[in-house]
Amino acid sequence: MEINDDNWINEVTFSEAGLLPAIAQDASSGRILMVAFMNREALLRTVETGVAHYWSRSRGKLWRKGEESGHEQLVQDVQLDCDGDVITLQIEQRGGIACHTGRNSCFFRSLTPDGWQTTEPILKDPGEIYADG
Amino acid sequence: MEINDDNWINEVTFSEAGLLPAIAQDASSGRILMVAFMNREALLRTVETGVAHYWSRSRGKLWRKGEESGHEQLVQDVQLDCDGDVITLQIEQRGGIACHTGRNSCFFRSLTPDGWQTTEPILKDPGEIYADG
Repeated sequence: MEINDDNWINEVTFSEAGLLPAIAQDASSGRILMVAFMNREALLRTVETGVAHYWSRSRGKLWRKGEESGHEQLVQDVQLDCDGDVITLQIEQRGGIACHTGRNSCFFRSLTPDGWQTTEPILKDPGEIYADG
Repeated sequence: MEINDDNWINEVTFSEAGLLPAIAQDASSGRILMVAFMNREALLRTVETGVAHYWSRSRGKLWRKGEESGHEQLVQDVQLDCDGDVITLQIEQRGGIACHTGRNSCFFRSLTPDGWQTTEPILKDPGEIYADG
């Protein structure tokens, strides 16, 4: 998206570590698919390209979601909360799989009287998703 | 909810500061209403009572959502993500207002070519919501 307002990024409040939690929500089903962090560059890149980019805290690098798996996230809308420190992305999830476990959503466990129960199936074996070239 | 498994809370990973981000999603509309933090006690209290409790970082205390405004959140489902460090709550939002600005959702700004634009109305004046006794 082309934005004719240079100030929009300054209305976003990043943490002391320079990060912002981003919630990816499936634009069709409304399901919350995953939560990851963005730094300023990841957010700029996401808005510029229309494809979700995050900051990987474990790998210490910018990461285009789906760069290995092909499970890219096409961003239809970006929303900012009242405090300016969390964003939601309305996305189309390529392959229908957002979770590294091969499920649609990372939130696949629900609390029941017997503890956490898995409520959704693995759609694709992670070994196949992340197989080396 | 009564849980016959003492171990469920140990599958939840709190940050070094003892906190966990919790996303409240409207169980009917699917809208993401707000994001707040829980400590262990807030999560236990939420599950025990079925009403959302959070940890206020600014006030340094446990907080029952709606304790001043009446805008309580009745919890229908709690979900945990693959890393065990974020939860989603499926809730019924009393009064239809989750945001302290008097709107349904805290995510009331969308990014447009002209910058952030407010996309939803104030349903009730915050001055009325938080009026002193």
